[in-house]
Amino acid sequence: MVRSDGRKNDELREIRITRNYLKHPTGSVLIEAGDTKVICAAMVEEKVPPFLKGAGQGWITAEYSMLPSSTHHRKIRESSRGKVEGRTQEIQRLIGRALRSAVNLKELGERTIWIDCDVIQADGGTRTASITGGFVAMVDALNKLIQEKKLEKLPINNFVAAVSVGVVEEEARLDLCYLEDSSAKIDMNIIMTDKNEFIEIQGTGEEAPFSKDELSKLLELGEKGVMELIQKQKSALGEIFHEEKHME
Amino acid sequence: MVRSDGRKNDELREIRITRNYLKHPTGSVLIEAGDTKVICAAMVEEKVPPFLKGAGQGWITAEYSMLPSSTHHRKIRESSRGKVEGRTQEIQRLIGRALRSAVNLKELGERTIWIDCDVIQADGGTRTASITGGFVAMVDALNKLIQEKKLEKLPINNFVAAVSVGVVEEEARLDLCYLEDSSAKIDMNIIMTDKNEFIEIQGTGEEAPFSKDELSKLLELGEKGVMELIQKQKSALGEIFHEEKHME
Amino acid sequence: MVRSDGRKNDELREIRITRNYLKHPTGSVLIEAGDTKVICAAMVEEKVPPFLKGAGQGWITAEYSMLPSSTHHRKIRESSRGKVEGRTQEIQRLIGRALRSAVNLKELGERTIWIDCDVIQADGGTRTASITGGFVAMVDALNKLIQEKKLEKLPINNFVAAVSVGVVEEEARLDLCYLEDSSAKIDMNIIMTDKNEFIEIQGTGEEAPFSKDELSKLLELGEKGVMELIQKQKSALGEIFHEEKHME
Amino acid sequence: MVRSDGRKNDELREIRITRNYLKHPTGSVLIEAGDTKVICAAMVEEKVPPFLKGAGQGWITAEYSMLPSSTHHRKIRESSRGKVEGRTQEIQRLIGRALRSAVNLKELGERTIWIDCDVIQADGGTRTASITGGFVAMVDALNKLIQEKKLEKLPINNFVAAVSVGVVEEEARLDLCYLEDSSAKIDMNIIMTDKNEFIEIQGTGEEAPFSKDELSKLLELGEKGVMELIQKQKSALGEIFHEEKHME
Amino acid sequence: MVRSDGRKNDELREIRITRNYLKHPTGSVLIEAGDTKVICAAMVEEKVPPFLKGAGQGWITAEYSMLPSSTHHRKIRESSRGKVEGRTQEIQRLIGRALRSAVNLKELGERTIWIDCDVIQADGGTRTASITGGFVAMVDALNKLIQEKKLEKLPINNFVAAVSVGVVEEEARLDLCYLEDSSAKIDMNIIMTDKNEFIEIQGTGEEAPFSKDELSKLLELGEKGVMELIQKQKSALGEIFHEEKHME
Amino acid sequence: MVRSDGRKNDELREIRITRNYLKHPTGSVLIEAGDTKVICAAMVEEKVPPFLKGAGQGWITAEYSMLPSSTHHRKIRESSRGKVEGRTQEIQRLIGRALRSAVNLKELGERTIWIDCDVIQADGGTRTASITGGFVAMVDALNKLIQEKKLEKLPINNFVAAVSVGVVEEEARLDLCYLEDSSAKIDMNIIMTDKNEFIEIQGTGEEAPFSKDELSKLLELGEKGVMELIQKQKSALGEIFHEEKHME
Repeated sequence: MVRSDGRKNDELREIRITRNYLKHPTGSVLIEAGDTKVICAAMVEEKVPPFLKGAGQGWITAEYSMLPSSTHHRKIRESSRGKVEGRTQEIQRLIGRALRSAVNLKELGERTIWIDCDVIQADGGTRTASITGGFVAMVDALNKLIQEKKLEKLPINNFVAAVSVGVVEEEARLDLCYLEDSSAKIDMNIIMTDKNEFIEIQGTGEEAPFSKDELSKLLELGEKGVMELIQKQKSALGEIFHEEKHME
Repeated sequence: MVRSDGRKNDELREIRITRNYLKHPTGSVLIEAGDTKVICAAMVEEKVPPFLKGAGQGWITAEYSMLPSSTHHRKIRESSRGKVEGRTQEIQRLIGRALRSAVNLKELGERTIWIDCDVIQADGGTRTASITGGFVAMVDALNKLIQEKKLEKLPINNFVAAVSVGVVEEEARLDLCYLEDSSAKIDMNIIMTDKNEFIEIQGTGEEAPFSKDELSKLLELGEKGVMELIQKQKSALGEIFHEEKHME
Repeated sequence: MVRSDGRKNDELREIRITRNYLKHPTGSVLIEAGDTKVICAAMVEEKVPPFLKGAGQGWITAEYSMLPSSTHHRKIRESSRGKVEGRTQEIQRLIGRALRSAVNLKELGERTIWIDCDVIQADGGTRTASITGGFVAMVDALNKLIQEKKLEKLPINNFVAAVSVGVVEEEARLDLCYLEDSSAKIDMNIIMTDKNEFIEIQGTGEEAPFSKDELSKLLELGEKGVMELIQKQKSALGEIFHEEKHME
Repeated sequence: MVRSDGRKNDELREIRITRNYLKHPTGSVLIEAGDTKVICAAMVEEKVPPFLKGAGQGWITAEYSMLPSSTHHRKIRESSRGKVEGRTQEIQRLIGRALRSAVNLKELGERTIWIDCDVIQADGGTRTASITGGFVAMVDALNKLIQEKKLEKLPINNFVAAVSVGVVEEEARLDLCYLEDSSAKIDMNIIMTDKNEFIEIQGTGEEAPFSKDELSKLLELGEKGVMELIQKQKSALGEIFHEEKHME
Repeated sequence: MVRSDGRKNDELREIRITRNYLKHPTGSVLIEAGDTKVICAAMVEEKVPPFLKGAGQGWITAEYSMLPSSTHHRKIRESSRGKVEGRTQEIQRLIGRALRSAVNLKELGERTIWIDCDVIQADGGTRTASITGGFVAMVDALNKLIQEKKLEKLPINNFVAAVSVGVVEEEARLDLCYLEDSSAKIDMNIIMTDKNEFIEIQGTGEEAPFSKDELSKLLELGEKGVMELIQKQKSALGEIFHEEKHME
Repeated sequence: MVRSDGRKNDELREIRITRNYLKHPTGSVLIEAGDTKVICAAMVEEKVPPFLKGAGQGWITAEYSMLPSSTHHRKIRESSRGKVEGRTQEIQRLIGRALRSAVNLKELGERTIWIDCDVIQADGGTRTASITGGFVAMVDALNKLIQEKKLEKLPINNFVAAVSVGVVEEEARLDLCYLEDSSAKIDMNIIMTDKNEFIEIQGTGEEAPFSKDELSKLLELGEKGVMELIQKQKSALGEIFHEEKHME
């Protein structure tokens, strides 16, 4: 069956990564995956959270939010509700874990990098776009620390990117848009490194359970997608990684 | 004395109004005033707040927020704090009053228009940009209601735009950027209609009191600025207002 | 047209300022403007807020609240709602700015003066009464610091008082009571010093825009009212200011 | 040992009950017990809380608060903290129970009486003064309902008043002021009817346990105090109760 | 009249105290009084609350909560509501006062003991069971401090236990179950020491006032109940108190 | 390498499921997995949440909480903090999804089943124990609805159970205790049906990425564990499922 936007089942949406999107943050990126648009900003704070005081390492923390106007039906602001929703907390914990896994926190030193992912327009895959774009903003911020002589080299273990996969209309598909996501029988987010290893997988079959075969097929699709996204990250970060000499 | 960005004292920053900036809202605008960038979105809800039930009129309500990455020092999310700051509440009440004043709420009928003003990048004048941009997004949403046959004509009394003025380095200046704003001795926000009338003026001399002469000079500057902004709104809304036939 | 309480358009309501109204606070005042009654108390704290630590200056901060029984319809307590309303925050920010403008914060030294304005009975003009009465309570507290040898002279730049003006039934009127306020076409609060200078002006024409002429007339009325109020403050503070020798 | 204010151990402080203290509430009282001053206001709402819907009876509910300036050290507003303290909740529950016990809720009909007790100045015994004063305000509000032909007679079972007693410097004393209260070894609040019956007793010996003898002595003192307070209530309510004809 | 569970009016329900119920806390007890089941845990924190810093004494603080599934109708979690109910706060303040009264806080040293009382199943008397069981958990925790050489002897002034009494169907009864409690005309909680002294009494006649005679009868019943409960505590704590040599 | 508790790598801890653990809920279970103890209670509410009104189906919702005394270091109550932590929200969303997947919501009819999972003692695997035990409590509640003639047959699609697996000391292990969990390099939760299908998998390698091989091994271990847990559920539910005749 043909996808609503004409893509093949194993095809990503068009990905655009615009670096230095904002004026104030140390690193900032607009990532677009089809109609999904997320501003990812990285800001450095020269201290660590209380639980890490004196531990001789840094920290990466992420926050995620959707503009009220980013969705079809207006989304009530969490500041008006007075509390952060479960879904939001789950997503920002996920982004934080994913980005932390890519960084050597000891080499980062006693500082925190705040990654703010603000969804300007939502069309499925906002959390995976946040990870993929957040990684680039984070590298930009880390690179700035090198320029400011605060770091000697990038404290990066590997690239990290993420993509969603799912089973829609009985077909395994890569990078679901909102329409597909909301009718998916299985929905999975896959976060991987450039070394073909997993950082995190989260797969849910709320509508129906899924078999080992389906799982294998989705993992394969996800791997393909993440490897392509990492290529996009590399070409966006061009001058920083052109010889990959900073990478361990 | 020359302004940091080379402008004359009575000169606005470069203003850009991009309509249909987002996919989902009924009306949406990106307004840029120099480095200040605000997304203004208008979404229609087919009901009124409880206090207006059965009153045979509509309502306009505004919300305002700054992205954590929009400012030089990262701004803590109000959703994390669990409450909306006084400054934010003051601003969204101001935007709401200003936009409501432009609309014939009886003609609007029993519906609410939500105006979301989200500051992507802040460099002074975010509240006045929100009003100027919010007006355009609101007109776009109202125009959509005409296209959907829910309204017969635009329930608009007049145009509304806003600008800041202030006394900086002993000189009265129009449209302060952040640097000027933070060193201003007097700071005033002026909201006016296209008929040279005031909707609201708010002037504060926290650092030092101000004289009637200073007030007159600032009001004059503000009037000049607002009239230019309304021209920008008119040309942005071109096809809707080209003959101004919808306007009463 | 005759006003509901028989006053002339440029006439204040009867003003009474009772000093030392409460036993515990350093300074305390009951201010009555017609049926509006506000307790203004000033309490000194020998430290400054975090953002001023080490800045070698003091701070003035204000809080405002209405008793549930102060209004015609019972007002729900903000402590029960669990949050402070926008209107309240706006008012307490206004009072704080106004009173700070009257004080030389460097001379005050590293201490905070808390001004609590609690409305016992509301009949219009509670925020302006809070400023006018709060100023007297603050001077009393500062004078106490002189008696306690903590200050050498009053760190006061000028007197500050405030009044509301508005257009009701097509007439510009001074010091609106609740009935007038709720039917005013334009509503303006004017805060001035004893040197005929403005500290802050806030004018709103939510119901209808207003012209420069109307603005001028209202500013003139407001000036007249504030000057009379400052006379009331001076006679209430009699022994402190009888020779005005403490004033710079 | 002589009490700090020269009273005998079984002597109340001077009690003043001023009716119609405020303009807006249906009933309102300023009660003063020595330096303790509480405004008690009663406002009628023509509906009952959800849990009583359709139960054919009314409800009495009380709220209690202290002004920040009512105490020696400024008391932080509960609205600023964002929550109502345990002590406050305990007190308002106590006041509510005490006043409800005096009313025939079936005869009251499906309406709620809100009793707001706002402490203007605190010098010990604020919760008992709230009950004693709140009763008078409540009767005034009920009487107003008779005048408005909404009730035929006062739905009052009995008078209710309250007083504190305690053991201070090894002596049982009536109506403790703050100084005594804070050094009391045993502290007890006694709420009684005009028929010498108990509504509630709460006695705590946090510093030291107390014997049955001490308990007896305190109950006796409390009874004496409450009977005198009820006399004060009766003379304050004069015209309503002069023949006690409305009382069942 | 026979009680629903066949007990005599002066008979306690079956009491079971299981020590060391949990693995992690320093002291922990499951106390069962008929169908009422409460887990009482005592955990030691080697610091005191801010208001006691440097005061050379320790602190006991209690928290109380009911599982949503502990009651007949599911009880909404207070964490979901976002605030702790008045009833809960009142109860935890009561438990704290009662347990503090039993401890010599100076001898305890600068540490805090947290007593958590979590109701697993509720059938009346949960607050009194919390006190009775909490005392045993607290002694276990204190005894652990002796074993760890942090204390030399138990800093215990006396035993403390609590029981409810009430008038149901015109009869004074001991240890009310939920059914009795909800139809009681008078309800009283009595907290006493092993020396027949009162720590706290709280008696309420919300439905009807009560006489001195009724009060006497209830106090007598309560005393009988508490003395039996203290025997249960002593036999549960057997090895610690067998010679009562640690007690002062 | 030998596990701290002597188990083989593919061995579950001792599992005990005690049905009818509490008196009030429709269904209730104490599930113990080694030292982890969770009370799972199911309570039926005869209405659905607002978003399902009129949708002709039921709903399953879960809440999860840990007693303060359930962990080694006392856990601050979420009700005291005034908000539910991200971790808690994530877990209760997970439990809810898992249990909903097992139920035919249309057949359930317009009612909600609340599943409360309260951790009495924590030693790793509390969320998976909550799912495994919650399923049994839910079936008990559904069975009660059959007995009350509200349902004709169990609206159950399949059994659901969950287990954690992880790589500890370079070895893939089943059912991690707390000590293992906190030193695991990879941590995965696996939720499956009795038909060997996946409901949800969540695997995280925060400390280090993991390979496809490791993933396969962990999935295999998890499958073994879940199948054994489902056997435990079946024997616990004995009389209900002895012929599995109610199952579709």
